[in-house]
Amino acid sequence: MTSSITPAQLRTLFRPRSVALVGASDKSGFSRSAYQNLVEFGFGEHTHLVNRRGVEVHGRPTVVSCTSIEENVDVAFLMVPQAATLDAMSDAAAAGIRNAVILSSGYGEAGAEGRAAQRELVAHAEKLGMILLGPNHLGFANFVDQVPVTAISGLPHRAGPIALLSQSGASSNAMLEFATMSGNDLSYMVKLGNEAMITAGHVLDFLVEDEGTQAIAIFMETVRDPEVFRRAALRATAKGKAVVVLKAGASELAARTAAAHTGALVGDDKVIDAVFRQCGVIRVDTIEDMLITAGLAAHTGPLSAPGVGVVSISGGACDILADRAAEAGMSLPALHADTEKALAAVMPAYGTVQNPLDVTGAAIIDPSLFTKTVKAMADDPDIGIVAVVNALPAYGDGPWPGQSYIDATGAGAAQASTPAILVSQILQPLTDYSRSILDHAGLSYVLPGLKQAVTALTGLAHWSETHHRLGSPTSDRTGDAAPALPPAADRRGAWSEDAARRLLRDAGIPVVPSVLATSADQAVEAATSFRGPVALKIVSPDIPHKSDIGGVSLGVNGDDAVREAYEAVRAGASRVPDAVVEGVLVSPMRSGGIELLVGVVRDPQWGPMLAVALGGVFVEVLKDSALAPLPLAPGQATQMLLSLRGAALLQGARGTTAADLDTAGEVITAIADLAIALGDDLESLEVNPLRVDGSTVEALDALVTWRTA
Amino acid sequence: MTSSITPAQLRTLFRPRSVALVGASDKSGFSRSAYQNLVEFGFGEHTHLVNRRGVEVHGRPTVVSCTSIEENVDVAFLMVPQAATLDAMSDAAAAGIRNAVILSSGYGEAGAEGRAAQRELVAHAEKLGMILLGPNHLGFANFVDQVPVTAISGLPHRAGPIALLSQSGASSNAMLEFATMSGNDLSYMVKLGNEAMITAGHVLDFLVEDEGTQAIAIFMETVRDPEVFRRAALRATAKGKAVVVLKAGASELAARTAAAHTGALVGDDKVIDAVFRQCGVIRVDTIEDMLITAGLAAHTGPLSAPGVGVVSISGGACDILADRAAEAGMSLPALHADTEKALAAVMPAYGTVQNPLDVTGAAIIDPSLFTKTVKAMADDPDIGIVAVVNALPAYGDGPWPGQSYIDATGAGAAQASTPAILVSQILQPLTDYSRSILDHAGLSYVLPGLKQAVTALTGLAHWSETHHRLGSPTSDRTGDAAPALPPAADRRGAWSEDAARRLLRDAGIPVVPSVLATSADQAVEAATSFRGPVALKIVSPDIPHKSDIGGVSLGVNGDDAVREAYEAVRAGASRVPDAVVEGVLVSPMRSGGIELLVGVVRDPQWGPMLAVALGGVFVEVLKDSALAPLPLAPGQATQMLLSLRGAALLQGARGTTAADLDTAGEVITAIADLAIALGDDLESLEVNPLRVDGSTVEALDALVTWRTA
Repeated sequence: MTSSITPAQLRTLFRPRSVALVGASDKSGFSRSAYQNLVEFGFGEHTHLVNRRGVEVHGRPTVVSCTSIEENVDVAFLMVPQAATLDAMSDAAAAGIRNAVILSSGYGEAGAEGRAAQRELVAHAEKLGMILLGPNHLGFANFVDQVPVTAISGLPHRAGPIALLSQSGASSNAMLEFATMSGNDLSYMVKLGNEAMITAGHVLDFLVEDEGTQAIAIFMETVRDPEVFRRAALRATAKGKAVVVLKAGASELAARTAAAHTGALVGDDKVIDAVFRQCGVIRVDTIEDMLITAGLAAHTGPLSAPGVGVVSISGGACDILADRAAEAGMSLPALHADTEKALAAVMPAYGTVQNPLDVTGAAIIDPSLFTKTVKAMADDPDIGIVAVVNALPAYGDGPWPGQSYIDATGAGAAQASTPAILVSQILQPLTDYSRSILDHAGLSYVLPGLKQAVTALTGLAHWSETHHRLGSPTSDRTGDAAPALPPAADRRGAWSEDAARRLLRDAGIPVVPSVLATSADQAVEAATSFRGPVALKIVSPDIPHKSDIGGVSLGVNGDDAVREAYEAVRAGASRVPDAVVEGVLVSPMRSGGIELLVGVVRDPQWGPMLAVALGGVFVEVLKDSALAPLPLAPGQATQMLLSLRGAALLQGARGTTAADLDTAGEVITAIADLAIALGDDLESLEVNPLRVDGSTVEALDALVTWRTA
Repeated sequence: MTSSITPAQLRTLFRPRSVALVGASDKSGFSRSAYQNLVEFGFGEHTHLVNRRGVEVHGRPTVVSCTSIEENVDVAFLMVPQAATLDAMSDAAAAGIRNAVILSSGYGEAGAEGRAAQRELVAHAEKLGMILLGPNHLGFANFVDQVPVTAISGLPHRAGPIALLSQSGASSNAMLEFATMSGNDLSYMVKLGNEAMITAGHVLDFLVEDEGTQAIAIFMETVRDPEVFRRAALRATAKGKAVVVLKAGASELAARTAAAHTGALVGDDKVIDAVFRQCGVIRVDTIEDMLITAGLAAHTGPLSAPGVGVVSISGGACDILADRAAEAGMSLPALHADTEKALAAVMPAYGTVQNPLDVTGAAIIDPSLFTKTVKAMADDPDIGIVAVVNALPAYGDGPWPGQSYIDATGAGAAQASTPAILVSQILQPLTDYSRSILDHAGLSYVLPGLKQAVTALTGLAHWSETHHRLGSPTSDRTGDAAPALPPAADRRGAWSEDAARRLLRDAGIPVVPSVLATSADQAVEAATSFRGPVALKIVSPDIPHKSDIGGVSLGVNGDDAVREAYEAVRAGASRVPDAVVEGVLVSPMRSGGIELLVGVVRDPQWGPMLAVALGGVFVEVLKDSALAPLPLAPGQATQMLLSLRGAALLQGARGTTAADLDTAGEVITAIADLAIALGDDLESLEVNPLRVDGSTVEALDALVTWRTA
C-alpha cells in the first residue's frame, strides 16, 4: 500500500500545521527535548500534549486522547512504549490524524519477533489509512518552516537548501554538527529509522517537489525500496537537485557490521555503484564530503561543462589540487586559445598562462588580477566552473590583510559567465570571522579544503552530465528491434548452444556461422564449406558443461579428423545418461582479435544488470568489469568498454588491431536489448566470448538460462 | 660544502640565543612583522636591529653594522634587497655570525640569471664559513624556545611536538592555521625557500636530535638533496620520529605547474613512493592528513602491532570506518579468542562481539562499557591501538550530556596496555569547549574525522613496521655472495646475451641451460642433448634487437629443422654490417609457468631501483609493477610480488601452479644484489622473462647495459 505515500501526503507530514506529542511526560527525556524544541522554534501554540492520565506535563495542560484536540492535527509524534503503540495509532486515526512518527524500538531491528511486530504495525497503519515515519528513530526537523518533530537536542535554527536523510541514529548528530559548522545549512533533517512504510525514496520524492530544498544528502546502509528510490533519484537529477549518498557497507567487514546492528540486507556494492551512476546519484565516502558536495550542488546547480578552471596565488595549492584532480578524474581542461589570449593580456610577463593558473605575486600589488582572470577563465567554453583557491582565516581580530583578494574574487564572480566560487586551502569551520570576510566581498559561499573541493567538483561535474543526458530526448531508449518473446513453455532451464545462437541471430546479433550436424558426413560437409580448421561441440540442453565430458573438439582440420572428432564428441555425450542430444555444432575456428564477456544477469533488488569484461586474466584475475542497469543509454556500452582497466588493449596496445568501439558498443547494446525483450523470466543471457577484431564483432558462444528450472 | 651543515650547527640557527634583523626599517612590512613577532614572544631583549643609516626603527635605536652589536649573535635575518645581500653577509660574518636567513627573492626561482645569482650567493657563504636558510622565503619560527625569526604574522604561541617544514610560501599560512585549529601544535615551522644550502634533509637531520620534536610534517614539491634526505629519514624512522610528507607533483599536470612556479625538477612519482616506503616516510595527500598523521604519531609513537581495534556506540560510524579501512588497507583484525571471551563477559547479550565493536545502547545506561571494552581490546595481541569513535561537540554551553562516554573512554585509555585514543566522527576544530570535555576525561588528544583517522592510522601502522624492521639486526643486508666486478674495459655498451647469462650463472642465479654453437653441427648436437624443441638466438653485442633481423627461431624440433634454423639465424645477422657474431645460442624451449620481468635501472636522483612485474598484458597494458630502491630488505622481494595487482596469478588463479614465492623472492634478491655488486657503471640489468613454475625459477633471457657506450 505504499502507493498512498505521495509527495502531497508527505507534505502534510513534513510541513505540518500542528503536532500532537503522544506520550508526553515530565519523566521522559525524549518528551522534554521534543517539547522544548517545538517551543524554542516558536511552534508551541500548535503543539498539543497527549498524556494518558491527563496530568499537567512540561507545565502545560494535556488531553487524554487526540480526539480531544480542538485543532486539525497533521502529525502525531508517538513517544509511547511499544506495547501502547497500536492503541495510540488508533486514537490518533480517530482524531483524523493521518501521519505518525514512531519513536519506539523493538521492531525490524530486533530479531524475528521484532519483524513480526513491525509487520503488524504496518498492517494496522494501512487499516487506519495512516502513514508512518520510523519506527526506531528520533523524528525529523523542518528548518524551512521551523517545525522540529524530534527528540534530539541542540538543533540549529538557521535554514539552508540541503535536506539531510539518515538511516543512522547515532551518527546523525555528528552530521548535523558538521552541516552547521561548515555553513551547509539544512532545509530538513529526517531520521529514517526502520523505514517500515516511508523509505528514503519516498522522502526523496517529496523533496524533489519541495521548493525549500535544492540538494539532498543521504546516509544509508541499505536501499529499502529500490524502485521507489531509483525513480525519485532520476526525477531529482532531471530537476537539477543533486542527490549525494554516503552508502556504507561497501566492504565485507562493514556489511557484517551493518548486519549486526540493523538487520538490513546490504546489497552488492558494485551494483549499487552502477545504479547510482545511472541515476546521477553522487556517491561519497565521508560525512564531510556528503554535506560539502550537497552544499556545492545546491549553490551552483548543474554545470554547463565539466571542466574546472582554477585560479590561485599559491603555487603549492595549485599542485596539491592538480594531484588530487588527476586521482579523482576531475577535468582541468587546457585553456582555449581565446582564453589564453585574454589571460596573457592581464598576467605579468613572468607568469605562466595555464590551468591551474598561478596569478603570481603580482596580485599582491594588484588584487584586481583575481577579478580579471576569473572573468577570462569563466568565458572558456570548456570550463563550467571557476574555483579560486585562497586562504580564508577562520579566526582573527579586525580587518584581515588578505581581504582585497577575496573582494576582487567576489567582483570576478559577480561578472563571470559561469559559476565562480572560493575554495579555502583547508577544511575549516565557517566562523563569524570568515563569514564577515565573505560578506564584505559579496560572496555567500566557500568550498572548504582542497581535497574536499576536488571530490565535490568531480561529483558535481558527473551529476551535471547525467542531468543534461536525462533532459535530452534521446535518453529514453528501451529495447527496440527485439524478437518476439519465446512461448512460456520454452522459457525454462538452460537452452542448448544452438538454440541460444539462433536467438541471437534472430535479434540481429552477429554470430559465428555454424551447422548443426547429425551425422559424421554432415559434419565433414560443413567443415569443407568453412574451409579451414573447425570446432565441434555437442548440442544438448542436458549438458551445460560440454568440455567436462569431452563434448568439445577444437582446431579440427581435414575430413578424417572431422569424422573422428564427430564420433568422439558423440561418445562423450553418451556417457551422460538420458541426455537428449540435438546434434553436433560445427563452426569455423577463429583466431586473432580480442575476446569480451558480455552478460546480463538479474539482480534481486535492481533487475537486469549488464556486465562487460575483457576475457582471460582481466576478468579472472583482475575482476576488471563494468556494470550497468538496463536499459542502456545511447553510447553507454562504448563508455563501459572504455572504463575497463584493460581498455588500452581495445585501442591497439601490444600491436593488436584497434577495436571498432562503436560497432562493439552497438552489438553489446543489442544483446542488452534482447535481454530486456526476453522479459522477467530470463535468468541470464551470456555471450562469452564476443570476439572483436577491428570492425568484425561476432558471438562465438552463448548461454541462455531461465528462472524456471 | 654541505658537509658543514651538521645538526650541531643547525642548533645554533634554529635555537638562537640572539638575532640580528638586518635591513630593519619602519617602511618594510616584513621588518615590522618580524620585529613584532620577536617582541611578542618575549625575545626583544636579544633582538638587534641593523639599519644602514643607523636611524631609530620600530622605536628602537639601531646599529649600522653587525660588528657593532655587543652580544654574540647566532642568526642574521637578512631583509635587505637582493643587491645588498652579499655585503650584508660579509658584515654579518665579520661579526662572527655563522647563520643567515635570507628573505630576498630573485634567485633560483628566477630564470638563468637568478640561478647564477644563487650560485654566487652560496659560494660567498662558503667563503665566509656561513650557512644559509633560503633565499626567497619568510624565515622560521621556533615555538619550543619561543623565538620567531619570520616575517609572517598571526603566529600561535602554543608549542607542540610537530615540526612543520614547507617549500611553499603561500600555502604555509593555511598549514599553520590548520595545525593550530586542530590542536596539532608545532615545535618549529620552517619555510625552506629555495634551499640553496640548507635543504629539507638537513633540517630533518637536526630535528631527529631535537628533544622538542616528536614528528615531522613536510610539504615539498621536490627533494633537493636526495641522499641527505634519505639518510635523515631513515634515522628519524629508526628513532621513532615519524616523517609525514605531502609531496606535490604526482600528476603530470602538477609537475607542469611546479615547473612553472619554482623551476624545481619534479622527480618521477613512482620512484618517490618507493623511496619513501623504504625509509618509512608516510606519504599523504592533503594538508589536513599531513598534520593529523604527524600529530597521531607524535602522540603514540610506534605501534607494537599494526591492527586497529575499534569501539563505538554508533553502528553507522563503524560501517563508514570499516569501508574506508578496506579501501586504505588498514588492518581491523578479527579478535583473538581470549579477547572475544573478555568482551562477551561485559557486552549485553544482544550485542555482537566483533571488530569494529558496536557497544550498543547498553552504554547509555552503563558508560563503563567503554572502559571495559577498551581494556579488553587493548589486550588483544594483534591490536596495536584502540580507537574509540564518539561524537565530540566543538561548540556548546555548560556540561555536555555525552561527557560520561568520554570520561569512561579516558578511564579505559589510562588502564589499557596499548595506546587508546578518541576519534571524532567529523573533521572539526579542537575548540575550548572540546578541550574542556577532553580535560575532564583526562585525555589530551583526539583524532578528528573518520576518513582522516583511517588515513592516519594506516600510515602509522606502516611506519611502525618499518621502524621495527630498521631496528632489527637483519635489516642491514647488502649484496652478498656477489661475483667480482668485471674489468673496467668490459664495463661498456650492451653485453651479448651469452655474456649476460654467464654473469647471472656465476652469481648463482638459475639460468635456462644453453650451448653457444658456432656451427650447424654443434647446434644439432646441443638440441639433441636437450631432448625436445629448442630456441636458437644469434649472439652478438652489436645486435640488441635480435628478433627484428630474424635472429631468433623458436620451437625448433628435429635435426633438419635445427640445421635450417641455424643457417637462417646466421643469415639474418649477416644483414647487420660489421656485426661481430659470437655464435648461436641453443636452449631448450620452456612452456607453462608464469613469466616475470625483473629489472634494475639507475635513477638519476635515487640510484639503483628494482622493478618487478608480471609479463604480458600486466606490464604492457596495466603498467602493473612494483618498485624498490636497493638494497632490498629480507623478504622484500616476495612482498613486492604480492603487491602486484595480478598477484593472484602467482598464487594459483586460473588453474596455474602456485609459484614458490620464497624461491622467486630469493632469485630476485640475488639479481638485485648482483646489480649492486656491478657498481656505479651499470646502467641496467634486466632479466626478462624470469620464468616461475612452482619452485622452478629460471632466467630465460637477460640484458646487461653499461653507462659508457
